[in-house]
Amino acid sequence: MELNRRHFSAVLLAAAAGSVGVLAPALAETDPLPSWNDGAAKSAILQFIRTTTDPSSPQFVPPEERIATFDQDGTLWVEHPIYTQVIYCLDRVPAVVKEKPALADVEPFKTVLTGNFEAIAKLSLDDLLRIVAVTVTGMSVEDFQAEVKTWLDAAKNGRWKRPYTDMTYLPMIEVLKYFRANGYRTYIVTGGGQDFVRVYAEATYGIPPEQVVGIAGGTEYGYDKNGRPVLTKEPKLLLNDDNAGKPEGIHLMIGRRPRAAFGNSTGDRQMLEYTKFGEGPRLSMLVLHDDATREYAYGPAQGLPDTRVGAFTQELYDEAIKDGWFVISMKRDWRRIFAFET
Amino acid sequence: MELNRRHFSAVLLAAAAGSVGVLAPALAETDPLPSWNDGAAKSAILQFIRTTTDPSSPQFVPPEERIATFDQDGTLWVEHPIYTQVIYCLDRVPAVVKEKPALADVEPFKTVLTGNFEAIAKLSLDDLLRIVAVTVTGMSVEDFQAEVKTWLDAAKNGRWKRPYTDMTYLPMIEVLKYFRANGYRTYIVTGGGQDFVRVYAEATYGIPPEQVVGIAGGTEYGYDKNGRPVLTKEPKLLLNDDNAGKPEGIHLMIGRRPRAAFGNSTGDRQMLEYTKFGEGPRLSMLVLHDDATREYAYGPAQGLPDTRVGAFTQELYDEAIKDGWFVISMKRDWRRIFAFET
Repeated sequence: MELNRRHFSAVLLAAAAGSVGVLAPALAETDPLPSWNDGAAKSAILQFIRTTTDPSSPQFVPPEERIATFDQDGTLWVEHPIYTQVIYCLDRVPAVVKEKPALADVEPFKTVLTGNFEAIAKLSLDDLLRIVAVTVTGMSVEDFQAEVKTWLDAAKNGRWKRPYTDMTYLPMIEVLKYFRANGYRTYIVTGGGQDFVRVYAEATYGIPPEQVVGIAGGTEYGYDKNGRPVLTKEPKLLLNDDNAGKPEGIHLMIGRRPRAAFGNSTGDRQMLEYTKFGEGPRLSMLVLHDDATREYAYGPAQGLPDTRVGAFTQELYDEAIKDGWFVISMKRDWRRIFAFET
Repeated sequence: MELNRRHFSAVLLAAAAGSVGVLAPALAETDPLPSWNDGAAKSAILQFIRTTTDPSSPQFVPPEERIATFDQDGTLWVEHPIYTQVIYCLDRVPAVVKEKPALADVEPFKTVLTGNFEAIAKLSLDDLLRIVAVTVTGMSVEDFQAEVKTWLDAAKNGRWKRPYTDMTYLPMIEVLKYFRANGYRTYIVTGGGQDFVRVYAEATYGIPPEQVVGIAGGTEYGYDKNGRPVLTKEPKLLLNDDNAGKPEGIHLMIGRRPRAAFGNSTGDRQMLEYTKFGEGPRLSMLVLHDDATREYAYGPAQGLPDTRVGAFTQELYDEAIKDGWFVISMKRDWRRIFAFET
């Protein structure tokens, strides 16, 4: 039996070795980015991976230094017209008010409860932050995870009538897989909530919780009524992972400067600069939303005012061109945007 | 050429397959923990790994959930009679005073400059924190890394006259490797400085920077005189990774409850509780320093007063026994303590 097994393994491995030899040239020609049109952006990605993983290349990057960081909202999935996590927080308001009825007569909760979208859209950033504070804190980290999961299983995007986790960009999913297949650890570095994104990042992007860096609130360690340890989410900001907070968060959570970074707004500017200015080969890329038909068009030269926090401005576009980042045009560079498209 | 290569690979792989068959039974019997004496502690580790990685076991843990956390000072390397990082900070004082001469006449720097060890040993915790603040902040993260590296290359432990990175416990290095060989990601979760430990953790423990969680100060993003981005270390505490701060830090940086945790002092109590009280198989272990000859003896039943921050108290020992943690006796469980021992 032992002998048979051994021989069987030897045959299997020999067969595998043969297959590698036979199939390698064919595999090498398989396009790792089939949803991308040929162009400068696609070429830049292919060349970056080729040169940084070829041991004979002067641009070779040792495996331990292969870190790539990706903004989420607007870079990996749809952010327009409103961030998914904001919708989650607004949707949670009725449940929170049920637990704390006094909030029903207090702004901004009163406005949210009316369901009047136009009025809700006019809430200030401070109002939104107050809503976030009461909807994502005060519970155990496990209860929060369960609530987000329940919501994600039921909620649908307003335009496409699909789960939010379907709203990811297929070309970027291909980039994540291509980087990982070449030894890069892929991190999400988001201006969204770290705990929120961690709930679905593994299933949606193949990115485990420990590789999600985001806006992070504190937790407080204590004990439940049975004496079991519990971590409770507190309304205390630990890491404001946006703008300059992105490289600061990368240092805190990763401790190495990324070799490649992808973003889409001014909130990503410092991360893209910090990445690009490192020594050796570095790749910084910006997703430009210029496809009003298949997704949205906003940002420079779109003729559309964009008042969102973290907008893609003309100034950002100019910095990208000046400093050798690559701009990804959704319209021109992406053959297909969503996996569900036929 | 291509054909030859392919055949060569096939032969190599077939040979490897044969070797696996021949050697597997022998390897299976090779002791992964040769520096450990047989006993309850060693058995607990072996059984934990065996049952959590066997797909047919009811205790099986999926690979993505395999997280193990390790305190550093006193658990992975010598902490007595003074933390290595404190020595680093004291050693840095003359260089800092050279840059800021006014500090020479100010306490506690004045005392440190005398070199009077007895007086230095009497400095308060507040004094030490002031020393830490001026010696590890105000420079770029790269300059700090270079300074620590230079110091580690030259400094020697007072008792053994060896580099501090030689002062690691060989039995624990074996545990780290054994866990990793079985698909566990091994994290350091230290009450020491995160940036400090990250400088040597990869070479010393095989643990990359992104898997070191520790006391973390903030950084500030800015630009140097050439307009290049720079992160400067700031005297601002972001994460106090000790006591309750350990599970809080684990949630912030890893986002999953560990399956196994190793510590040696009251500073590790909450991490060990938090780990052990999770669902499914969990392993919490405490290193007891009870070997005055080969290392040090301090903590419960040693008859030695221990006034260090984060001491191993009788109360901690009692909690360990009550809650089913395992206590590792250095004297009884470790056949060999240091790799340099003959």
